[in-house]
Amino acid sequence: MPGTRPGMTEECVAVTESSTKDLEAYLHAHIPLSAAMQVAVVSASSDAVTLSAPLAPNINHRSTAFGGSISTLAILSAWSLVNLRIKTDGLNTRLVIQSNRVDYDAPIESDFTATATLADIAAWPGFLKLLARKGRARIVVQSIVRCGDIVGGRFEGEFVAFKL
Amino acid sequence: MPGTRPGMTEECVAVTESSTKDLEAYLHAHIPLSAAMQVAVVSASSDAVTLSAPLAPNINHRSTAFGGSISTLAILSAWSLVNLRIKTDGLNTRLVIQSNRVDYDAPIESDFTATATLADIAAWPGFLKLLARKGRARIVVQSIVRCGDIVGGRFEGEFVAFKL
Repeated sequence: MPGTRPGMTEECVAVTESSTKDLEAYLHAHIPLSAAMQVAVVSASSDAVTLSAPLAPNINHRSTAFGGSISTLAILSAWSLVNLRIKTDGLNTRLVIQSNRVDYDAPIESDFTATATLADIAAWPGFLKLLARKGRARIVVQSIVRCGDIVGGRFEGEFVAFKL
Repeated sequence: MPGTRPGMTEECVAVTESSTKDLEAYLHAHIPLSAAMQVAVVSASSDAVTLSAPLAPNINHRSTAFGGSISTLAILSAWSLVNLRIKTDGLNTRLVIQSNRVDYDAPIESDFTATATLADIAAWPGFLKLLARKGRARIVVQSIVRCGDIVGGRFEGEFVAFKL
């Protein structure tokens, strides 16, 4: 058919869209703060997860994005990335945040996104090996919070997975 | 009257209760996330600010308090403390968070509080002096997140005040 892509690509797109909607529904159902913040999933893959949030429910007394909302969107993006990678590898774990640091670089004056990636992609095989051997492993995730081209915040968080 | 306290004490109590309610109303009106989290002001003085949040709106997929909510309650308590101290000193500033670190020490399984204090009480006079001289100064605040006797999280954040 004119205008459509080859079957395989279409299927991939469909799977991706379904995963994105699944993740959004999961977050809203199980973490009510994500629903209050109106968090949406922009994209989700093993390489990166991008979440978005509108300014209105996340505003502060200065009409910019509230630091708590910036932190929270970054945490959600980072948790979602590790969770997605673990599920892709067919593992069943409990995943918890151990610590995080956030730098608030610039005021955010409109809707914003958080894009999470592994701090060191090369650490993943070792993380999986340790998880299998010790039943527990640690991984560091970064997330960049942007408003258009402006970097409003930089997050780095350490997550621990426990094999179930 | 029997059972009442001396006038001065009563006045102090009244002022404190009014400030507490004022702070709560201010947070809910200007930072909608604090209303979604059902944040309440337990106590607020120049020494310490304690905020509370119920578990239900702040729960995660594991039925414990969500890391984003723990971070956010700590940020709100720390901001409130510095804001209250600045107002007590009769200053007019814009107060922003510059960075923070949070350690999530233990899962929180019920309603929780965040108690903010200055990291170094002796730094306050220097902070005020710099604010007056340079129009800008930095102060570090700690906040301990507790669920009953359990310390669930430890927060340290750097705030910058700009003289208006």
